[in-house]
Amino acid sequence: MQNQKVAEGEHVLLYLDQRRTYLVKVEAGKVLHTHKGFIKLDDLIGKEYGSTVTSNLNVQFTILKPLLHDYIMKSVRRTQIMYPKDIALIIVFSGIGPGSRVVEAGTGTGALTTALAHFVRPNGRVYSYEIRKEFLETAERNIKRAGLADFVELKNKDITVGIDETDVDAVVLDMATPWLVVPHAYKALKPCGTLVSFSPTIDQTVKTVEALKANGFIDIETLECLVRGMQTERGKTRPQTLMTAHTGYITFARKALKIAATETSQGNNDDF
Amino acid sequence: MQNQKVAEGEHVLLYLDQRRTYLVKVEAGKVLHTHKGFIKLDDLIGKEYGSTVTSNLNVQFTILKPLLHDYIMKSVRRTQIMYPKDIALIIVFSGIGPGSRVVEAGTGTGALTTALAHFVRPNGRVYSYEIRKEFLETAERNIKRAGLADFVELKNKDITVGIDETDVDAVVLDMATPWLVVPHAYKALKPCGTLVSFSPTIDQTVKTVEALKANGFIDIETLECLVRGMQTERGKTRPQTLMTAHTGYITFARKALKIAATETSQGNNDDF
Amino acid sequence: MQNQKVAEGEHVLLYLDQRRTYLVKVEAGKVLHTHKGFIKLDDLIGKEYGSTVTSNLNVQFTILKPLLHDYIMKSVRRTQIMYPKDIALIIVFSGIGPGSRVVEAGTGTGALTTALAHFVRPNGRVYSYEIRKEFLETAERNIKRAGLADFVELKNKDITVGIDETDVDAVVLDMATPWLVVPHAYKALKPCGTLVSFSPTIDQTVKTVEALKANGFIDIETLECLVRGMQTERGKTRPQTLMTAHTGYITFARKALKIAATETSQGNNDDF
Amino acid sequence: MQNQKVAEGEHVLLYLDQRRTYLVKVEAGKVLHTHKGFIKLDDLIGKEYGSTVTSNLNVQFTILKPLLHDYIMKSVRRTQIMYPKDIALIIVFSGIGPGSRVVEAGTGTGALTTALAHFVRPNGRVYSYEIRKEFLETAERNIKRAGLADFVELKNKDITVGIDETDVDAVVLDMATPWLVVPHAYKALKPCGTLVSFSPTIDQTVKTVEALKANGFIDIETLECLVRGMQTERGKTRPQTLMTAHTGYITFARKALKIAATETSQGNNDDF
Repeated sequence: MQNQKVAEGEHVLLYLDQRRTYLVKVEAGKVLHTHKGFIKLDDLIGKEYGSTVTSNLNVQFTILKPLLHDYIMKSVRRTQIMYPKDIALIIVFSGIGPGSRVVEAGTGTGALTTALAHFVRPNGRVYSYEIRKEFLETAERNIKRAGLADFVELKNKDITVGIDETDVDAVVLDMATPWLVVPHAYKALKPCGTLVSFSPTIDQTVKTVEALKANGFIDIETLECLVRGMQTERGKTRPQTLMTAHTGYITFARKALKIAATETSQGNNDDF
Repeated sequence: MQNQKVAEGEHVLLYLDQRRTYLVKVEAGKVLHTHKGFIKLDDLIGKEYGSTVTSNLNVQFTILKPLLHDYIMKSVRRTQIMYPKDIALIIVFSGIGPGSRVVEAGTGTGALTTALAHFVRPNGRVYSYEIRKEFLETAERNIKRAGLADFVELKNKDITVGIDETDVDAVVLDMATPWLVVPHAYKALKPCGTLVSFSPTIDQTVKTVEALKANGFIDIETLECLVRGMQTERGKTRPQTLMTAHTGYITFARKALKIAATETSQGNNDDF
Repeated sequence: MQNQKVAEGEHVLLYLDQRRTYLVKVEAGKVLHTHKGFIKLDDLIGKEYGSTVTSNLNVQFTILKPLLHDYIMKSVRRTQIMYPKDIALIIVFSGIGPGSRVVEAGTGTGALTTALAHFVRPNGRVYSYEIRKEFLETAERNIKRAGLADFVELKNKDITVGIDETDVDAVVLDMATPWLVVPHAYKALKPCGTLVSFSPTIDQTVKTVEALKANGFIDIETLECLVRGMQTERGKTRPQTLMTAHTGYITFARKALKIAATETSQGNNDDF
Repeated sequence: MQNQKVAEGEHVLLYLDQRRTYLVKVEAGKVLHTHKGFIKLDDLIGKEYGSTVTSNLNVQFTILKPLLHDYIMKSVRRTQIMYPKDIALIIVFSGIGPGSRVVEAGTGTGALTTALAHFVRPNGRVYSYEIRKEFLETAERNIKRAGLADFVELKNKDITVGIDETDVDAVVLDMATPWLVVPHAYKALKPCGTLVSFSPTIDQTVKTVEALKANGFIDIETLECLVRGMQTERGKTRPQTLMTAHTGYITFARKALKIAATETSQGNNDDF
């Protein structure tokens, strides 16, 4: 067993209850203010992960090592709509894994980027396109905080103009006009590579599916995912009262090879 | 670009349409029989991934490289109830990733084992417990087919008796009596390690949550996941007609350190 | 207490279990054949409702008085997609009740017609339009079986051409092109009257909502309804395994009065 | 066409938009204050239903005749959990209709009572039990406002002690301990009569189903209903962002006759 004690400079998750957790960098001399009193971060240094620390109001917080899920949740902004449930389906259904090379757009605040980087380690890479500079700065901070900067290349570029990379395993799109990227994604992907697109509206989804069909993709599937929490307690068990009704539709597709013109009669291969 | 052509001994996914795919090992001289005619597997060797092959009835199949998702789907038996959607949430919400050491029970046909092994590569390891020998044989075949045998240790042991490993990152349970494993899981896990339990019934879930609360786990959360497909086609877009209404409830928890008796005044540690 | 004994000519529901019920007219000398043996219908006459009858294979069936719900379920054909859940929302959310005058199209097999007739009794009326004669015959049989023929006027007419009735409380549409009926419905409805439209696809729904907005309707709302059964049994409680994922979207709207040109200053009433 | 103009003493629904409606009694000299200015109720008298009225801030409100749905919505309190969707299923699945005699408990604020009374008109009756006097007063106000007081008998009695009525068509329970009422409901119901029970928790549902099985009910079914709104607009169509995840489980059952002791061999009828 190693690396079990909190060291200065590490990020920890202070857990009060299911709704109140604090992702904080342990810096000597600093203080965390909460509704339940303040905690001197000096008190954390040298403590074991999983143990507790006490605020000046005598409330106990458990010191947890942040997991991927925590980094994702703390990177999600109100205005964003891709939730961990969607990120989970995207990663497991797309075939991404250690060693994968993945193109992503847009970066946003980096929640999906963080998850992708986590899973392509140690020898894969995420190329993340974003046109809005202010988002790139936030995303960079979030990715660094999760210790994943080595696996990400942030690119301040418009992906609807083109993709620099080739032979990638997957292209993952969470942007307003994914259908404009489909032809570029076809060129960037390996044969059998996966394209994933996430869109809040039906209309975006239909346009994207049409572009996929027109550009040599097969195995096209769209789905939505609903997650409902349960309040589990003997004698009182019941689902939660409110839930997220919709984040977006996720479309998956795979690149097939287009039949070369020489195999067909007329030889017009302009669109290949 | 390398490794793009089909070689003898590889597994390929032959794709006819969304509902009909065939996961097959390419062996010289063998034949695949389908509703749409037969395919000589010799014809596949040397073809590019993403290209097509034609059956004797002149029907085209696309040759795809199988993804994790395909290996999972082809390992799932009718009687099993953990679906890729659940596997996705388990992997992304539990903090598992490259390098993780994970204990799993029961192995079943190896669908979850395959996914765990895929994501802990190249330096992590899955220790999978199963008491039914006939399942272990099926699981071993499925895991080998996915090329992941190096990352899995299959154990023909009863996990309710104890867990051999220590200092693991996660314990993932898909078995009839997960609550019996909770104390063993506590010992096996690193501080802050994650326990995940999947159960079809409410009653199993309540018992497991009670055991978690009684055994030093915090951040306990139960949820269910519903996935609904969309038929996406301009002018005809609508959700699918039938869906899976229930597979199971997933419970997540993290190990906190129990306060040692000497840190409290009186030393009564009966309940630890 | 009256009318408690089964009389010849009545319809009864023979209940074997949750999945196997038989809606049958009690005719002397006739026999009902089931998987569990045959039942002489003579045996039912004079028996009390709620009591049991025994097949020749010694299996017991309970004799139930059919409820509206049974008549609906036994009128629904495989190809139909409006389920009792949708009928329930339509009736309760639309303000229909005893005394209401309701226009419906298309009649189909009469499942919704039966429900509407049941609730507008004793002094309301349902005017049901259907262009396909063969459906009208089936619908008539189903409505008669439920004893509701006095409250229904079946019309073999194309509702997209116009509606004969005026001053009606509600117009309920379950047809391929509801948007074509919207202007006719506006004329047929009382002020504040309700239009309800049921459509399987998003595209039909969008067209209908656009027509409603353009034709003086307000309070426009679209929703979908999902019903999931629970297997309730101590120690084994869990949701059912499969469910209907989609039947259709239901849109509700109310007729507002259009502002007459003379009431506004300038008199441009092109769009009214 | 009659009764189309607003008269003093009537209730009207002033509609601003989908989220802002006001159910108000038209009393001469009174004023309604809204976020969008105030409206003199005198201005409403003599206006046509479906027309608009203008606030002092020059904002238009449409004058609608309230529907059952509006009365229900305006009777629902935050702390209540039975929603119109559940009321709809209860009414249509239970076989209730014009002429039905229905026992209900508890009355609560009268939302379900209002709906039941609406549908049993003109010759049915609702007997509604409530032990909390303060709720009965609120309920009475709400039922009177909907013009349905003639069809309801409010009873300040504990239904777990017994039911006064006999030969009723349905017993509908929305209370903490429905299983205590099951034997009383059996006595009160006609043969084939329906019992409906609504409970927020699994545990209440299981206890109720057990009591139903033990007390001569058959055709027992439990379900839950989810309603999700759609934002329907060309180019932007998508489900709503948040939804109610749970109100309660609804259980339906029908009374079968118990087999009289003389029909069985030994005549021990202790359990009847």
